[in-house]
Amino acid sequence: MLVFRSLVMLSLFTGHAFAQDTFKALPDKAPAPKDNPITPAKTELGKVLYFDPRLSHNGTISCNTCHNVMAGGDDSRATSVGINGQKGGRNAPTVWNSAFLGVQFWDGRAPDLEAQAKGPITNPIEMGMKNHDIAIERLTKIPGYVELFKKAYPKDKNPLNIDNAAKAIATYERTLITPNSRFDKYMKGNKKALTAQEIRGMKAVEEIGCTACHYGANFSGPIGIGAEPNYHKFPQNPNKEIEKKYNFTEDLGRYEITKKDEDKNVYRVQTWRNVALTAPYFHNGAVKTLDEAVKVMAKLQLDVDLTEAQTQDIVAFLNSLTGEFPKQTMPRLPELRNTTFIED
Amino acid sequence: MLVFRSLVMLSLFTGHAFAQDTFKALPDKAPAPKDNPITPAKTELGKVLYFDPRLSHNGTISCNTCHNVMAGGDDSRATSVGINGQKGGRNAPTVWNSAFLGVQFWDGRAPDLEAQAKGPITNPIEMGMKNHDIAIERLTKIPGYVELFKKAYPKDKNPLNIDNAAKAIATYERTLITPNSRFDKYMKGNKKALTAQEIRGMKAVEEIGCTACHYGANFSGPIGIGAEPNYHKFPQNPNKEIEKKYNFTEDLGRYEITKKDEDKNVYRVQTWRNVALTAPYFHNGAVKTLDEAVKVMAKLQLDVDLTEAQTQDIVAFLNSLTGEFPKQTMPRLPELRNTTFIED
Repeated sequence: MLVFRSLVMLSLFTGHAFAQDTFKALPDKAPAPKDNPITPAKTELGKVLYFDPRLSHNGTISCNTCHNVMAGGDDSRATSVGINGQKGGRNAPTVWNSAFLGVQFWDGRAPDLEAQAKGPITNPIEMGMKNHDIAIERLTKIPGYVELFKKAYPKDKNPLNIDNAAKAIATYERTLITPNSRFDKYMKGNKKALTAQEIRGMKAVEEIGCTACHYGANFSGPIGIGAEPNYHKFPQNPNKEIEKKYNFTEDLGRYEITKKDEDKNVYRVQTWRNVALTAPYFHNGAVKTLDEAVKVMAKLQLDVDLTEAQTQDIVAFLNSLTGEFPKQTMPRLPELRNTTFIED
Repeated sequence: MLVFRSLVMLSLFTGHAFAQDTFKALPDKAPAPKDNPITPAKTELGKVLYFDPRLSHNGTISCNTCHNVMAGGDDSRATSVGINGQKGGRNAPTVWNSAFLGVQFWDGRAPDLEAQAKGPITNPIEMGMKNHDIAIERLTKIPGYVELFKKAYPKDKNPLNIDNAAKAIATYERTLITPNSRFDKYMKGNKKALTAQEIRGMKAVEEIGCTACHYGANFSGPIGIGAEPNYHKFPQNPNKEIEKKYNFTEDLGRYEITKKDEDKNVYRVQTWRNVALTAPYFHNGAVKTLDEAVKVMAKLQLDVDLTEAQTQDIVAFLNSLTGEFPKQTMPRLPELRNTTFIED
């Protein structure tokens, strides 16, 4: 499952030679599929849909509820709370830079953001709509949405449908990029952008081997449309003591989708971007602090017992990956006048 | 409980004489108490707090969850859903123009926005914090909040406390004003801003008597700091058939607070501003459409059976009260790094 990469060495400003495709600055723009180019009208529609709780059965949950754009793109919880107080099984991944992931969801069950966007709407413990038709029926009753879909898909005869809704949400998400972290500034040549400790952490993640999986601009492996999915087993080296504490293996990961033995406890490699803001950690959100997450990862994946100093260096480096969050205007949700279609 | 008002007649542009203090344009700015003047720093802090779900025990509910600023200032639901899927007992009032209400909550149990803001945070079925100290403890751990409170209250020695948090939220809410509805334009002299039907509706609400309670710039009675609270019994004229359908009297309204017999089924008079966007209607949200709400109100409060034409005229007039919603930037919630304090 490991992708073997050419380890061409690149001399940076530290005297240390880093592998050329391990560390990369984040592009300012995300790639988009050919059949869904990014346009301002689609981005605007997608933003409105993303924030609209009327896409949930009882009007309480929007995409933003669990993937909060005003924060680290998640909900600070171990696992999310969906409709009627129901708890989900996995930690909400951040929406920020999700456009750079090869596959979506922890288990990679959606190949792209378009496919991902449709899932939670009809998931009974997330937004709880019985089917997509009911969601589209609701939107069709709102004149402002009819207009927004027309503008976003001017060539479509019947633009207001679930595929176009998903495409618009995916388009908005492709604008949720956080470039210009201190790490990115360093990569672009500003030697002073990182502290000595952060550079030590950067060296450590490569030397110890973390970057065998966490590499590239998003630290999650290949980026771009059609990029090779980057899966890995977790834990690689089972450990009874850690398992007792965090119960990592109960969830069978990608196996739940494929039912192949080789996919047991296999997950998509997660991004390191803004990881300082997305506690708690791991697929079940069992680990509260980044310090502990780093130690646990090193032990379970690489059988390395990090020293406290190494841990602090790596945490410092990971904190340098917090990017700039683009300012945005708050959307107005199009009006349904004089009535409501929300049921309990 | 009715406030008797001087009925000085004012000739508008229609030939019809309206009572002078019945119909008024909405001011561009809301009044603020002397000890809590509106400042940009307080407004900014208040906005951030308003959107922060970390003010709820399990991180799932913010002020905006039920009083959605991106929509009509409420949640389109009969009654709101708070923490752990618990349903509240009353319909969420709109936050828009709430600064013009004489008292807060349906039963008037908070005299002002400052007092109101504290309530839901520790309400066990709303945001569910055990006490305000825990909320303040959380905020104190977030460096960005420490900074925002310092900036908002530069003269305070220990600015980060619950009273200052409530003052900031109230300040933000005082900026949530929707002036320049078509009605307001009409009142300011633009004769063409209202249609003939809307003007018929405007005359009707006065002639029938709705404006005995729903008068003034906010159609909720006296506005301004220290303004006389405007309470009224509902239903004024009990009606078995309607009661059977909508179960209005089960909730004892202000009596639940005062335990005085005269306060049974008494409520604060609600605003008409943006009422087209705040379905469903009444304290228990039992009525889905504005048409039906208008008919029910006329029958229960004034013993008037409206014709279909009268109803449509009044609904048309009420739709002219939808204002302009000020554009705003989306807040960034200050970061807690490398850990979370959210518990289940």
